[in-house]
Amino acid sequence: MTSTAGIIIIGDEILSGRTKDLNVNWIANELNLIGIRLKEVKIISDDKQTIIDTINNYRNTYTYVFSCGGIGPTHDDITTESVALAFNLNLEKNDEAMRRLTEHYENSKIEFNEARQKMAIIPEGAKLIDNPVSAAPGFNIENVFVFAGVPKIMQSMFISIRDKLSGGKILISKTITCNLGEGIIANAIETIEKKHKGLKIGSYPYFKPEGFGTSIVLRSEKIGIVNEALTEVLRAIKNNGGSGAVVN
Amino acid sequence: MTSTAGIIIIGDEILSGRTKDLNVNWIANELNLIGIRLKEVKIISDDKQTIIDTINNYRNTYTYVFSCGGIGPTHDDITTESVALAFNLNLEKNDEAMRRLTEHYENSKIEFNEARQKMAIIPEGAKLIDNPVSAAPGFNIENVFVFAGVPKIMQSMFISIRDKLSGGKILISKTITCNLGEGIIANAIETIEKKHKGLKIGSYPYFKPEGFGTSIVLRSEKIGIVNEALTEVLRAIKNNGGSGAVVN
Repeated sequence: MTSTAGIIIIGDEILSGRTKDLNVNWIANELNLIGIRLKEVKIISDDKQTIIDTINNYRNTYTYVFSCGGIGPTHDDITTESVALAFNLNLEKNDEAMRRLTEHYENSKIEFNEARQKMAIIPEGAKLIDNPVSAAPGFNIENVFVFAGVPKIMQSMFISIRDKLSGGKILISKTITCNLGEGIIANAIETIEKKHKGLKIGSYPYFKPEGFGTSIVLRSEKIGIVNEALTEVLRAIKNNGGSGAVVN
Repeated sequence: MTSTAGIIIIGDEILSGRTKDLNVNWIANELNLIGIRLKEVKIISDDKQTIIDTINNYRNTYTYVFSCGGIGPTHDDITTESVALAFNLNLEKNDEAMRRLTEHYENSKIEFNEARQKMAIIPEGAKLIDNPVSAAPGFNIENVFVFAGVPKIMQSMFISIRDKLSGGKILISKTITCNLGEGIIANAIETIEKKHKGLKIGSYPYFKPEGFGTSIVLRSEKIGIVNEALTEVLRAIKNNGGSGAVVN
């Protein structure tokens, strides 16, 4: 069976437009490389009940759930306590997290005060996720991985747990760019998609200063199908008076 | 009452990592300017039932719903039929949409073929949303606005319906940047937030080549509260040995 995933982006700063999310696209590409299908993303506010409901809905729906944001030391960081509530677990000061944070702050000569010690409090029984950037760990309970929201930290956390994820067949993807509007080749690509079982073709118009055209993306778990369809799409482009090229 | 909004981004190309979403942040900033609170965003795949369920859930939850993507001429563009199903409306070839598209394709000397005529089919009774970029209209039913996914087109569509939206009080926002880690001032800003009714303070660490620090964002509908809290946060930064500046 194919593994699936859902991503939860937690933070008022994304919804207010102050901050652009950079995590969805990065994780999406990583998941692709290991054959996990990203099925849905939700961007939600720093609201306890919303976080609890979304975590519970996603963890019962997808093979893996990744959350980003809200695990820092300040009052608006409520992801950890919300995830604990979703799993009905108590929070506890984690010894190993305390050790890592103590060492980190000793080395950087910064006071390891009460607010910062909040970052060592995680749900009981959760596994720590390493944070090589700033020590404060993420954590993992069952199929839920709780990451920081800062992209560099999130990425380092994802990389540290990547080996734990079991993906399935990698979706092979090839893209053709052509100088035709998508309306011209719409029928042809629909016919080609229907002909091959397990093939999905996406069609995306583009508008650039040098002209408009269409990117056609072919996806399948089978390289043979992708290659056959590739030839057929290129032929259809030519038959309609256009020119196409495989770009990746 | 404050108006709220939900955004639905429709497209496998976002979930596969091929395309970076650029629409959420743009719409979020526009909504801010007119006093509408963006409460949630969902990124979903090109799947009919998922689109229907999400449209129905959001339109019953938020004042306004904006969907982006999936209204082009190809087989993977299934947003229009899904929205019609969500509202239990028939699809019909819209005369005015046909007129606009016919004119557009005549002017550009491109054949207005059957696939392209699909873009004139919209749910009965829906109002057209102008598309100054490429003619093919979006549409509006009740509180749901259906836009194209291409950012330039989506933006022109949003601008053309902006006057229809009634916002509420604009959330005033000020940002302070300081050279302290967020753990140092966590307690102070929590106290300041609790002191002022209707004030929300967000705290966001940053890591730049020139050093780390924290951005503190103060938000309220009342400028007086924001200014008072601003003074208090700057004082707290100073009392903790740091320096802060109001950046916007």
